[in-house]
Amino acid sequence: MVKLVFARHGESEWNKANLFTGWADVDLSEKGTAQAIEAGKLIKEAGIEFDLAFTSVLKRAIKTTNLALEYSDQLWVPVEKSWRLNERHYGDLTGKNKAEAAAEFGDEQVHIWRRSYDVLPPLMPRDSEYSAHKDRRYALLDDSVVPDAENLKLTLERALPFWEDKIAPALKQGQNVFVGAHGNSIRALVKHIKGLSDDEIMDVEIPNFPPLVFEFDEKLNVLDEYYLGK
Amino acid sequence: MVKLVFARHGESEWNKANLFTGWADVDLSEKGTAQAIEAGKLIKEAGIEFDLAFTSVLKRAIKTTNLALEYSDQLWVPVEKSWRLNERHYGDLTGKNKAEAAAEFGDEQVHIWRRSYDVLPPLMPRDSEYSAHKDRRYALLDDSVVPDAENLKLTLERALPFWEDKIAPALKQGQNVFVGAHGNSIRALVKHIKGLSDDEIMDVEIPNFPPLVFEFDEKLNVLDEYYLGK
Repeated sequence: MVKLVFARHGESEWNKANLFTGWADVDLSEKGTAQAIEAGKLIKEAGIEFDLAFTSVLKRAIKTTNLALEYSDQLWVPVEKSWRLNERHYGDLTGKNKAEAAAEFGDEQVHIWRRSYDVLPPLMPRDSEYSAHKDRRYALLDDSVVPDAENLKLTLERALPFWEDKIAPALKQGQNVFVGAHGNSIRALVKHIKGLSDDEIMDVEIPNFPPLVFEFDEKLNVLDEYYLGK
Repeated sequence: MVKLVFARHGESEWNKANLFTGWADVDLSEKGTAQAIEAGKLIKEAGIEFDLAFTSVLKRAIKTTNLALEYSDQLWVPVEKSWRLNERHYGDLTGKNKAEAAAEFGDEQVHIWRRSYDVLPPLMPRDSEYSAHKDRRYALLDDSVVPDAENLKLTLERALPFWEDKIAPALKQGQNVFVGAHGNSIRALVKHIKGLSDDEIMDVEIPNFPPLVFEFDEKLNVLDEYYLGK
């Protein structure tokens, strides 16, 4: 039996302000930092020992990963950071609050962008201060894979190779894995793991806290699924 | 021109208490945390952009690395952790203060252990609470490479493969590299980089702060060497 622990990052400054965040590299709030520390303590209480950890290239997930490892006394565990675990790219909604977006595009349209599996929000202009195309951390990627907007479908399509290449092989080798990521990248992977339909996954909410644990057998059949400390 | 920045970890709890630390996994003191943050700010002021970072598997160096990257706005930079960058293993002196060690072994003997290049301190018993042989993070290593004590000569011998395999190739490819490590693992690499004699290196002190910068040409000839902010 092997364990995969998903920790969505703790509350970010933009979660608190109710802004669409996506790939904007926003820091944890004070509450988010406390949640990440608490996640580490829950992992320690549960006695979970990791062999590997994965996170995105966004600081709210990286800090959550580092704090969770530190407070479970395993900061030495190897951590690999990948853009494939980034949050869904929210396109031109990035940096807007839900009221601003509704005023600009209409309530119903914003609801569709948030809740549909495969409808794309408006593209982020390349000259936006948030454009990933100007960001050094994505400079080595082929321009065609750097998004201007994503829905959950596209988020899963670019996260899935990371599952296939890194996470699943580690689990099959019996390694316990920590993934510190984002609401929608975790949701995408959960859809894949559980074989949920496009409709079913839209009803799944991943909270900022506590971490979500999957237990697998050696063929990656799900044996159990639960939130830590519950 | 390419840059290598060495940051010795900030002051640890045992630096403060004047204890031999070695491979004991001691945390940063409050002052040490502030030094790591300040190191990050100096890196940002200097405009140094890293492609890769390396650190040890000891939390005082890992936290220094994470804070230095965070406060220079590049927490997303890949970090690889290796035992080969660990502090010199201080054998049975680990956990003793300098007065205790002098009372037990004599002043002159302790001075020799601290200041000689190739004299080995007493071995740490395998049943010591600090023994690396009981520590999960070293479990995948061949038992023969897990030390019971080291001098600077042995520290260089096990750090050198990491320089040859990871650090030097990255620098030769034009990548700027951050190394968050320890007084003696940095000293060992500085001996190699500058071609210092066994005697010369024993006079080199690496402070907890500020970071030490080397600038190289494409053949890894040293063009410049300086402390950040000085």
